[in-house]
Amino acid sequence: MNAPTSPSHLAPEIHQRDVPTALVDALKARFAERCSTALVVREQHGRDESAFAPVPPPSAVVFAESTQDVSDAVRLAGDYNVPVIPFGVGSSLEGHLLAVQGGISIDVSRMNQVLSINAEDLTVTVQPGVTRKQLNEAVKSTGLFFPIDPGADATLGGMSATRASGTNAVRYGTMRENVLALQVVTASGEIIRTGTRAKKSSAGYDLTRLMVGSEGTLGVITEVTVKLYPLPEAISAAICSFPSIEAAVRTTIQIIQMGIPIARVELIDANTVRMVNAHSKLTLREEPLLLMEFHGSPAGVQEQALLVQEIAAEFGATADQGAFEWATTPEERTRLWTARHNAYFAAIQSRPGCRAISTDTCVPISRLADCLLDSIAEADASGIPYFLVGHVGDGNFHFGYLIDPTKPQEREIAEQLNHALVTRALELEGTCTGEHGVGLHKMDFLLTETGSGAVDMMRAIKRALDPKNIMNPGKIFSL
Amino acid sequence: MNAPTSPSHLAPEIHQRDVPTALVDALKARFAERCSTALVVREQHGRDESAFAPVPPPSAVVFAESTQDVSDAVRLAGDYNVPVIPFGVGSSLEGHLLAVQGGISIDVSRMNQVLSINAEDLTVTVQPGVTRKQLNEAVKSTGLFFPIDPGADATLGGMSATRASGTNAVRYGTMRENVLALQVVTASGEIIRTGTRAKKSSAGYDLTRLMVGSEGTLGVITEVTVKLYPLPEAISAAICSFPSIEAAVRTTIQIIQMGIPIARVELIDANTVRMVNAHSKLTLREEPLLLMEFHGSPAGVQEQALLVQEIAAEFGATADQGAFEWATTPEERTRLWTARHNAYFAAIQSRPGCRAISTDTCVPISRLADCLLDSIAEADASGIPYFLVGHVGDGNFHFGYLIDPTKPQEREIAEQLNHALVTRALELEGTCTGEHGVGLHKMDFLLTETGSGAVDMMRAIKRALDPKNIMNPGKIFSL
Repeated sequence: MNAPTSPSHLAPEIHQRDVPTALVDALKARFAERCSTALVVREQHGRDESAFAPVPPPSAVVFAESTQDVSDAVRLAGDYNVPVIPFGVGSSLEGHLLAVQGGISIDVSRMNQVLSINAEDLTVTVQPGVTRKQLNEAVKSTGLFFPIDPGADATLGGMSATRASGTNAVRYGTMRENVLALQVVTASGEIIRTGTRAKKSSAGYDLTRLMVGSEGTLGVITEVTVKLYPLPEAISAAICSFPSIEAAVRTTIQIIQMGIPIARVELIDANTVRMVNAHSKLTLREEPLLLMEFHGSPAGVQEQALLVQEIAAEFGATADQGAFEWATTPEERTRLWTARHNAYFAAIQSRPGCRAISTDTCVPISRLADCLLDSIAEADASGIPYFLVGHVGDGNFHFGYLIDPTKPQEREIAEQLNHALVTRALELEGTCTGEHGVGLHKMDFLLTETGSGAVDMMRAIKRALDPKNIMNPGKIFSL
Repeated sequence: MNAPTSPSHLAPEIHQRDVPTALVDALKARFAERCSTALVVREQHGRDESAFAPVPPPSAVVFAESTQDVSDAVRLAGDYNVPVIPFGVGSSLEGHLLAVQGGISIDVSRMNQVLSINAEDLTVTVQPGVTRKQLNEAVKSTGLFFPIDPGADATLGGMSATRASGTNAVRYGTMRENVLALQVVTASGEIIRTGTRAKKSSAGYDLTRLMVGSEGTLGVITEVTVKLYPLPEAISAAICSFPSIEAAVRTTIQIIQMGIPIARVELIDANTVRMVNAHSKLTLREEPLLLMEFHGSPAGVQEQALLVQEIAAEFGATADQGAFEWATTPEERTRLWTARHNAYFAAIQSRPGCRAISTDTCVPISRLADCLLDSIAEADASGIPYFLVGHVGDGNFHFGYLIDPTKPQEREIAEQLNHALVTRALELEGTCTGEHGVGLHKMDFLLTETGSGAVDMMRAIKRALDPKNIMNPGKIFSL
């Protein structure tokens, strides 16, 4: 394996392509007031939650309300060789929405209909602007739920495009495992369907999985069919504090190796617990903790919980009274998960004016302690404040280095920490991104991770399916 | 949706490409006695378990012993624009191994090393010629197992190439969900790696899933990393007889809709039970039956079994004594699963000299009864003997029409039955192939299922990654 040849981009490279007035005129003729060129609208569509310095926004924003709208916008853009960047709610952490080659934004947030709930088949088909919370609200009466939960209330289109996952993935898988089929507008404006509602299929190339995680570079996702799951008869959540991060991680490793079907197992380090307490007015023990959830029958949940309690005890979790805290009511669980989901905002507020540079490595479970502990030591030594949370059951965790954006040296140090972390994760047979995607931020890392042969294969596919290079160009790999 | 415009090919179209003597000489120079041109060897590599009429065999067979061997053979073939067909054990049911455009066979069965068992991460990396039984033998001492079981003792390379699944898929998923990473020799002879051992990743296009199910048309798989699972603490199996197929299917539908994590649920119709009894000297009740297996803790298994028994009783399964029969010892379970796996051979023997034309539709679970019952009525009316088995928990089932290969009209009727079945499955939002792949047999059906836009996208990918069209050409789609 080669070491990365340079740190990730500190600022994105910009290669603006021409957006002719004739295209904007044509879009306005087709979409009327649903094509906006107002600066505030364009700027809102030209940024995301990444810490990149601003780049010039897209030249226009089209608010699509149908697949045909998307197709027409893509065809028009293609006529003028102009890039197209799909937009959901803008929750990307990796610069996916930055118009580094110029172009137009296609906002699909108004395509927010739940098209068909097939409860008896445990499937649902939605438009791409439906968010995960909206989806769960829509299917609630069926006794089913959609488990993928990346924290942010992202759209199903965006979650598909980045191959998102989150807290429930340890049990239910990621978007990779949960998308059954897509409708996609290709670079030529054609509308294709990548699969059926059958649970499995060997019918040709897996175009669904090719599109999932393609970050808008191969097409615009206009419908998503995903799996649903019966709401568990019983759910139980627990907070468990540990004397050290290592103890929490080793507990997690053993849970996974024993095959206990835990639904969620999230790590929060002591410092981040302090931030969460301050932000959410909580009194969690300010020690490394695991936030866990068990799904199943009442007896099954109890059995899992007892096993986990035994394992945790072996690693010192029950040295004090109150180290385990169980929550079986929905209200108690919501309180716990809200605290977890607010960790990001709690951290941002802990250093007013800061930006977070997020890491996203994922390693085989046996390597987790090695990868995490060395990276913590490096982060502590750097002097940069940070938060640390992890979907540790999958070997995936996130540092958020809280930098002062006015101090270039802090950004530099944070990127060096990220670089060291990714290098370590790759040496441990892991990946540079477990769930956020490559975007602009991890292009060098991708090359190091997969080698140039695999990236060249991706480029060849991109060229074949998007010969004009208009679909969110400049993301994943340079082209 | 368009109806299929013609029945599937009754005989494969042959477009032989030239295999220059210079290539065979070069292969012999490189591989010595590991390159065979003996007719018997070539014929053995130019057929599979499909019912197609024989086609001329490949011109040479290279017995590869390493990735470098595969790379060298592909490079040499590429120099002469000669097709390359990978070969494992030849268990394809869809004509994947037929040299319809001529070329050479690369036999990877000697690449049968288990390269690394990472028990603590629940992963294993193998060469492509390792069979699933060999793999399970190799990992037995770790307390882990590999669940995918397509019946035949297929190779991991072949199972990856066809996106295989089988009896355990209802709980553990298919090769789609269980392959973590591949090493692949591309059409240019380059060796690439498509992923890491991390459990999840958002690092660029999902080349692993693109290669899984690509049927040798995009590259030769030379290493496979798959997930392993802890052997369940308790396993229980049951045979349950039903008064009708509909009762068995409705029981299955309810099991799935309730989210019971059943590990296997296999349907065998009464006639096939008769064949199995005759072949395996068993005394199973000659009624439609479900063969089921439950994995989990002792309490969990008991809980699942009780729930299933209740559901089955509602559909009349316990009208007689002895309708449920439980097997908890490994020997009893082996006896049951051997009977299931021998259904194919039992059926073949029931009509000496026959060939089986297998169907492979898969539909959303709520459509299973409709799809199955109408197809049974059609098959019964046709007069063609058949067997019927199904991985019904996934909505996937197989008719095997037992035709006399000397009677063209029987083949014609069988293809008409298959055609009607696939048409029905597609109307019910299913797929023409749940696990066998497209091969030569289902190319028209694929087009109907996905539409020409999606197939054109597959073709564009194929052209981009294999510009000389040397990788198992003429399979999945015409090219």
